[in-house]
Order: sequence, then C-alpha cells, then structure tokens
Amino acid sequence: MLLCFEDEEAIAQRAAEAIDLPLARIQRHRFPDGELRLRLPDPLPSRVVLWRGLHQPNEKLVELLLAARTARQLGARQLTLVTPYLAYMRQDIAFNPGEAVSQRIVGAFLAELFDAVLTVDPHLHRVATLEEAIPVRDAIVLSGAPLLADHIATQRRDVLLVGPDEESQQWVAQAALRHGWHSGVCHKTRHGDREVDIVLPDLPVAGRAVVLMDDVASSGHTVAQAARALLRAGAASVDVAVTHALFAAGAMDLLREAGVGQVWSTDAIPHASNAVSIVPAVAQALRPLLAR
Amino acid sequence: MLLCFEDEEAIAQRAAEAIDLPLARIQRHRFPDGELRLRLPDPLPSRVVLWRGLHQPNEKLVELLLAARTARQLGARQLTLVTPYLAYMRQDIAFNPGEAVSQRIVGAFLAELFDAVLTVDPHLHRVATLEEAIPVRDAIVLSGAPLLADHIATQRRDVLLVGPDEESQQWVAQAALRHGWHSGVCHKTRHGDREVDIVLPDLPVAGRAVVLMDDVASSGHTVAQAARALLRAGAASVDVAVTHALFAAGAMDLLREAGVGQVWSTDAIPHASNAVSIVPAVAQALRPLLAR
Repeated sequence: MLLCFEDEEAIAQRAAEAIDLPLARIQRHRFPDGELRLRLPDPLPSRVVLWRGLHQPNEKLVELLLAARTARQLGARQLTLVTPYLAYMRQDIAFNPGEAVSQRIVGAFLAELFDAVLTVDPHLHRVATLEEAIPVRDAIVLSGAPLLADHIATQRRDVLLVGPDEESQQWVAQAALRHGWHSGVCHKTRHGDREVDIVLPDLPVAGRAVVLMDDVASSGHTVAQAARALLRAGAASVDVAVTHALFAAGAMDLLREAGVGQVWSTDAIPHASNAVSIVPAVAQALRPLLAR
Repeated sequence: MLLCFEDEEAIAQRAAEAIDLPLARIQRHRFPDGELRLRLPDPLPSRVVLWRGLHQPNEKLVELLLAARTARQLGARQLTLVTPYLAYMRQDIAFNPGEAVSQRIVGAFLAELFDAVLTVDPHLHRVATLEEAIPVRDAIVLSGAPLLADHIATQRRDVLLVGPDEESQQWVAQAALRHGWHSGVCHKTRHGDREVDIVLPDLPVAGRAVVLMDDVASSGHTVAQAARALLRAGAASVDVAVTHALFAAGAMDLLREAGVGQVWSTDAIPHASNAVSIVPAVAQALRPLLAR
C-alpha cells in the first residue's frame, strides 16, 4: 500500500498507479494549538510505502514520527519512505564548535523509523553516499539530472550547460555527458542567506544557448546572478533546469527580471515549472524492493 | 548549566538564578527553506537542563531532537527537559481505528532524548502518571493549581471555585481543598474544535464570587460559555484562573465580552495574564535532581 498526505495526493496517485499499489490518504487534523491528529488505514499490509516530500521539514518530521510508529502498530513490517525532496542534508559537519550536525541527527531519526528511504538528488557534500547520512538497509538515490537533460535536448540545440556554483558539478557533468554538451560551473562566494558573488567558468559563452542546471533553487538569487552574468557575456539565451523547485515567493519574478527564458523542474516538488516527472524512475526503483 | 532559546530567555534567566545555574542561550538560525541550525556552548558540563515550553509543538520537537543529541555529543550526561507546557498529552488512546496515539509516540521520543522531564499540569486523562506517557527515569509533575489558589485567596473572599468541564476536577478540587472553598465542575459536550454546550454544577451561585479554574484555556469558548451561564445564574463576579494561558487570538476579548472580570495565569506560558510564577516551584523540584 502507498500512503500519502492530502497535499501530495496527485503525484502519489500517479506513483501508486505506476507501481500498481493501492493508494490511501493519511487523515490529518491540525488542532488550533498546533498538535496533529493522524489516522491511518487499519489494518495495514506488511509492505507499506509512505510518500512525503520534506520541503519546510519540521512539522513533516513530526508527522513522519507519528505515521511511522503508528504504521508499525497497524501491521507494517517493511516500511519505505519515498521523500522526493529530503531535508537537512546540508549540515554534515559542525562548521563552528557546538553546532548541531543536523544531517546525522535527522538521518538517524529517519533510519529508526524506516527500513528504506528513497529520494531524489539529496544535497550531499562531504559524504559520498546516502547510507552515511541515513543508515537504513536500503538508501536509494535517484537523480533528476538525466530526466532534465533529456527534456532540455527536446527544447534546445547545441546547449552549453552551466552550474551556478561548484556544488552543482555532479549534476551538470552527468547531464552534459549524456548528450555530449560542453559544460562548466561558476565560482560562488556566499555572504549570508541571500547574498552571493558569481564568477563565470572560462568557457566561450557568446551566442550560445546556455542552460543553468542545479539540484535546487530556492531564493533564486544565485541563479539570477549567474543568468545576468551569462547574458552580459553574450549568451543567446539562458534557461534554467532544477530538480527541486523550492522557489521562495518572488523567486520566479527574480529569474524573469534577470532575463531567464524557460524554467524547467522535476515534480519532486510540485510547482508550476514542473516539466518532467520523477514518477517512472521512482516506480522502477521501488519495484525490486517491494518484490522481496 | 541551563540552556534556553531566545524567546524564553526571560523566564529561563529567573529559573537559572533561582537554581544558581549558569544560563546559556542556544543560538538558532532558521533558513528560508525552514531548516534550523542550532549552536550550543562547547563543551557542556555533565549536568544540563534544557528549558523549552512546547506550545505550538512541532518545530520545537525537532529543535529538541537536534539540541538533545548535540548536547550528548558535547559532554552532557544528565540531560533534563523543563517543559512548563507539555504538548501531545491528550491523545492517549486511538479514539478511532488507525489513529496515532501521539501521547505514547511523543512520550517515547522525549524519553529517548532526556533522562528527566519536568512539566506543569500536563493534560493527562486516562493515564495516572507522567511516567506512563514519558518513560524517563524522573518524570516530575508540578501543579499550577495551588499557586493560582494562593493568588486567588489574596484577590477574592468567599470564593466559589468552578471547573468549566469534568476534566478540570483534579485541579479545582485540589485548589478548593487548600483554602476550604466550595467547588464543582460543569458538564461539557463538545461539537468540534470550537463548539461546546455547558451545564452548570448544582451549586448555589447567586451573589457569589465565582472563579473558573482550569489547567489550560485556548480558544476561550468553553470558559466564556461557562462565565455567561454563571452570570445568568446570578454570580456576583466571574474571574478566570488557568495554569496555561494558551489563549488563541481573540480569546481574551471573548472572555471580556462574556463578562469575565480578571484573568490570572501562571507563567508556564508567557502571557499578559501571568499573575503567578512557576519558577520557585521548578527550582525546588530541580535542586535534588541536580545534587545527585
């Protein structure tokens, strides 16, 4: 059975159909004092998949605690979390003494609740595998980069693929290789949550159809700044492709004002810019797990 | 050491002084995507008290997860949570099949993080002790009822103490006994989060200084309805005394419109109505724990 919450029922429905699992919605009531009441189907089959993206994660982590513990009580023995957007993966060390290493803490929390975790492009830096962050039996990572690359290939010719910062290297390189595109990444210096300096990669940009690719865009500041620099350097067009369309309020306007043409994203986070779906890849990855 | 968050620094400071512990604030940054970054003092002493009320609890539960796990890494061996308002204590059974029994789940979660939990008037119904809900070595319950009763005794004479529903019986009886007041509780029928019917207890109300006492008031609807019924029955005055001034927006206006005179609360939740402090009682309860 695939369980979901109301706000993700549309994508969960498509996934349930693709995997051929019955879908059920977890009933959720939020009391005025902020407490949650969840109700799951009773009884549950032994194999249960819970679909929960973790954008704006804190309340959702409490939902996962309540839902997973209850699912176990109702009969679930193999409990899999599909979290197309996984939170708290950035802080993998204490940058300053005394800082909570939230990646390891939240990872251990999820590993206590679930037997398997499947996600798309988690924002891992200093750890090589998702298992290091979330020590579950099966930690499965899918990437939006090939999906986005294939979509870009239908929309633009002779693409120059650029990452807005060094961290985007893994996705940009993977996608460029797939279609034989030239690629490079910008050099970024951050001065707070929303202020960044960008230096373009040493590539011939003039007259090119540039696509800025990254795993996630939130405020849009970094991507907008890179787009402006690329257009100043003579790019014929600048489009944007991201796995996770986090996009805070105003971010899309910021991109448009910076001269960005199209914005393409996967539906790992539901957003107006969604152009490709992660559902077939998720279904393919879940099938062998559920056949065990 | 006593650790607190910025929004509770004032009361935590008074507690730290009363217990004679150094106070330190946990540095907290909330990123635009909702993720939290916490920073604790490094290193920590072996005995650490964390002060965190759990009104609007979900994000705060994630803070507790991050803070407690980090405190252990930084040297804390005896970790005590002082949570003047404890959340998720109401749902102690599945009222309908498949419901998450959040009391037990959140209780087990807190018990994994802390060695001791101290709270004030937790909203327990079908369980007799806090240990049943939170299986920690030391589960300490303080009551606001005697503190409020002593304050009422300085403000009103010949008090009739009334509970707005059956669940308030334990606090009303305790406070009435302490000062030899007559007391009783209303009969309440709930029709949703904010709709209730009230039947007054069979007591002579006419001409009396009635004080409505409960552990918590949130929307104010129940208390307002009880106050109107008491005034219709001839009460000379109706004041309100609650341990936890949860009070949603508009609740105080609702009470005033219903004819309520004074509203007195403890500072277990910071609010304009705070009239008595839980700090001396908390300090007294913590001292033997910290002397071990």
